[in-house]
Amino acid sequence: MATERQVWRLRRRPVGEIRDGDLTFEREALPDLAEGQFLLKILYISLDPTNRIWMSDAEGYMPPVGLGEPMRALVAGRVVASRKPGVAEGEIYSGLGVFADAMITDGQGLNRLDLPKGLSLATAFGALGMVGPTAYFGLLDIGRPKAGETLVVSAASGGVGQVVGQIGKIKGCRVIGIAGGPEKCRYIVDELGFDAAIDYKNEDVGARLDELAPNGIDINFEQVGGEIMQAVVARMSRFGRMPLCGLISGYNDVQPADWPGQWALVLMRRLTIQGFIILDYFDRYPEAIRDLVGWMAEGKLKTRQDVRDGLDRAVEHLNSLYTGGNFGKLLVRVSPDAEG
Amino acid sequence: MATERQVWRLRRRPVGEIRDGDLTFEREALPDLAEGQFLLKILYISLDPTNRIWMSDAEGYMPPVGLGEPMRALVAGRVVASRKPGVAEGEIYSGLGVFADAMITDGQGLNRLDLPKGLSLATAFGALGMVGPTAYFGLLDIGRPKAGETLVVSAASGGVGQVVGQIGKIKGCRVIGIAGGPEKCRYIVDELGFDAAIDYKNEDVGARLDELAPNGIDINFEQVGGEIMQAVVARMSRFGRMPLCGLISGYNDVQPADWPGQWALVLMRRLTIQGFIILDYFDRYPEAIRDLVGWMAEGKLKTRQDVRDGLDRAVEHLNSLYTGGNFGKLLVRVSPDAEG
Repeated sequence: MATERQVWRLRRRPVGEIRDGDLTFEREALPDLAEGQFLLKILYISLDPTNRIWMSDAEGYMPPVGLGEPMRALVAGRVVASRKPGVAEGEIYSGLGVFADAMITDGQGLNRLDLPKGLSLATAFGALGMVGPTAYFGLLDIGRPKAGETLVVSAASGGVGQVVGQIGKIKGCRVIGIAGGPEKCRYIVDELGFDAAIDYKNEDVGARLDELAPNGIDINFEQVGGEIMQAVVARMSRFGRMPLCGLISGYNDVQPADWPGQWALVLMRRLTIQGFIILDYFDRYPEAIRDLVGWMAEGKLKTRQDVRDGLDRAVEHLNSLYTGGNFGKLLVRVSPDAEG
Repeated sequence: MATERQVWRLRRRPVGEIRDGDLTFEREALPDLAEGQFLLKILYISLDPTNRIWMSDAEGYMPPVGLGEPMRALVAGRVVASRKPGVAEGEIYSGLGVFADAMITDGQGLNRLDLPKGLSLATAFGALGMVGPTAYFGLLDIGRPKAGETLVVSAASGGVGQVVGQIGKIKGCRVIGIAGGPEKCRYIVDELGFDAAIDYKNEDVGARLDELAPNGIDINFEQVGGEIMQAVVARMSRFGRMPLCGLISGYNDVQPADWPGQWALVLMRRLTIQGFIILDYFDRYPEAIRDLVGWMAEGKLKTRQDVRDGLDRAVEHLNSLYTGGNFGKLLVRVSPDAEG
């Protein structure tokens, strides 16, 4: 049983981009397990846009991480010691954890992860832990896609975006993805089957949308905000829906991100805009997992993980999210025996 | 049978407030009725915020009124001659018409209005023609009020606002109205039973909302836009709903009205914002009318009409809407025998 761990602790609230010294990487002793606790060896840490929100004391959907506390993350790990009835050594758990290689927990916020047949832990955790259900409920519950409609998804090659686009195709939509750079754009069209891609780093998003969606956009799965969002909203059709999943373009902003509301357009075109956070759908996870695993088994849904090694570089990897440096769902593999 | 009529025609698109010469008031001959047409003597014209939208060639939810055409309005009138089978002299029709004292029509956009027992034509047309159903569907379908929730309605003493607040009370909400001036504020509290009123002309809307809704706002029935809307949205609760019914503060703006979208807040609090136009609910009108008439008969729903005489002053009366000069649903009584 491990008696020490390595952990990232939040030391001050980042101003803008996360900088050296905002978090510290430490080695520390772990106490003995109390009754009802178990020790999780963390195998993967999920790096998500929302991590930056958790570091800030601006209004969020959960309390921020306290100064001095271990940085919060979604994790997957293996039980290496247990004093909790019903939790056995060797089992895999995933859920809310910390940027560390081990944690002592009473299991709150964690669920046992039984690997679906044929899926690696990286795929099951990366695609099904948060991003798959986020894409699933955001698109299906809020976006309400109908065959023949036009769906636009931003951050399209990222963890959530790639799943949104493929579910859109499964539902019969015409899918346009917005991504940064020719490689990602080729990937979402050639590998994932999107109908078209717009490279926001090299193309005029509005002009390309005019070409690709001359009859308007029925669903905008919004993850980015700012000018890209404005360009999409300006081209939405009557009765269009916009699941508002994230606003990553502004997460590092010192001033809260904001831009014109395009309200007259929301009114005249009868648009529906709905903010959502996947935690609200926790009770309905099994529904999403069942369909997602089924589509994966049928070969209709592929997911790409961007797996980085080295817990000591976790914060650096996280920062790359906000500049589009990842390609697929970003994970840190904490332990070389992660798949074992 | 009338062979002449008086009519307002749109001559140029207003820039900002409607000015002399934007519309002209004319006397003109009417042709004979063709087969399938009838002649409606217009008794009431409904003056609505949306009239200004119809004058503009900025994007709207219907095509704008063409230059040289009679100005569009909701009207109620009596059939004085008919060559249309099934339409008889003396019947009352209401629906889409024009700023005039008579019109020849094939009946498109009009429905026969059978006066509910005990209601005057001004009340039935004013309260049930457009504003009642707008309040009904916007609040119930989009706002989804639950007993104990806090509802804020702007333009609260206007045609739609007064009905929204009273339906909110019927559904068990705590209702805060925003209106201009102490008389309107007293009216919505003392006469209509709102829980509280905020006088936006004399009070700090945000500060008063903090006092009156310390636990947040669950539903914002939005009709105004601009700073008032921002103040309300900033205080909305998690999972709050915002039926977006109108943006009257900007209808006279030369530049399209716009202000920050408060998007981070929409996301973090999982707000739902939905633009709607009552025309979309036309098929469901009977449902609204049945409930509204029932509530009126039970004394739970009062409506106030602001009836002005003089078709020749219709445009002047309309302008008063945009400065809050009306008190209740604004109507022009075109003919002195309107109730006859």
